[in-house]
Amino acid sequence: MKFDISRATEVLSATPATVRELLGGLSEEWTANRIQNPKSKIQNVEWHPFDIVGHLIHGEETDWIPRARIILAQGEDRTFVPFDRFAQFERSEGRSMGQLLDEFAKLRTENLDTLRSWDLTNEQLDLEGVHPELGTVTLRQLLATWVVHDLNHIRQMVTAMSRQYADEVGVWKEYLSILR
Amino acid sequence: MKFDISRATEVLSATPATVRELLGGLSEEWTANRIQNPKSKIQNVEWHPFDIVGHLIHGEETDWIPRARIILAQGEDRTFVPFDRFAQFERSEGRSMGQLLDEFAKLRTENLDTLRSWDLTNEQLDLEGVHPELGTVTLRQLLATWVVHDLNHIRQMVTAMSRQYADEVGVWKEYLSILR
Repeated sequence: MKFDISRATEVLSATPATVRELLGGLSEEWTANRIQNPKSKIQNVEWHPFDIVGHLIHGEETDWIPRARIILAQGEDRTFVPFDRFAQFERSEGRSMGQLLDEFAKLRTENLDTLRSWDLTNEQLDLEGVHPELGTVTLRQLLATWVVHDLNHIRQMVTAMSRQYADEVGVWKEYLSILR
Repeated sequence: MKFDISRATEVLSATPATVRELLGGLSEEWTANRIQNPKSKIQNVEWHPFDIVGHLIHGEETDWIPRARIILAQGEDRTFVPFDRFAQFERSEGRSMGQLLDEFAKLRTENLDTLRSWDLTNEQLDLEGVHPELGTVTLRQLLATWVVHDLNHIRQMVTAMSRQYADEVGVWKEYLSILR
């Protein structure tokens, strides 16, 4: 499947409501058991859904649209500001899951409005920027990555939730690839 | 986290709306590109979201509650009827994603009503049945598996979607564990 703005937008628009339905009605035991896993602050694999929503919010604020602006501006220095993968641990402190879900939905709507307002051409999608670690990337790749990044973190949410029942499923563990 | 009916029900209740938000607004290119992957009928890894919703429906009809009934009845033969993992390919033929999402939501609501009506005790959760391949299992394990099975298939949906952009993300592939 080739990248296409309207197809990509279908997924990007769906994410906030998907995450709200997945997490909005759950007890904290499912979504934020950091107390049980103090190392979660440093190890990606142990992030919990609460942390992941914070990470998605931080991406809306500092990653996708700000980087797209750097590419579209085609200024002298097209190197992106490094993304802080751990910013959410401080940023989400003391907030509720409901507050985070609302904030994510609001920011995503604003960012998709911005994206649509640009009415990007194929030539613009080919424009390049510089990722601080990965090197040259195109605007098309940045936007495709935004989509896959959403899906990647939905996957991480359901994986973290599943692990909590790793022992409870008994012999069925063998059939459940999410637990391996 | 120990199994608890009300915690488990939180997840089971959330799945239909989660899947609807994830898939309901997407083009068929995202959800049902079986034409591009004719082998999907036999290889689990290539199932697409459309197939997976059909599989969830078939589970509501023939797996979780029917098996719970076998356990609760404690009859002479407590062996479950084998589950057909490929039934959805015929069963979903000619239907739309919208129809499947509606059907899944309706069946899940009915099944959760049934589960709640049983008002299960810890003693009942310890009752055993026989899985045709895995051997002895408890009702508690069956219900925990129902939860993880939902999460496993949400994971499979987002993984299948991501793969479609595996080339489009360029060098970012390295950062996206869902593409590995």
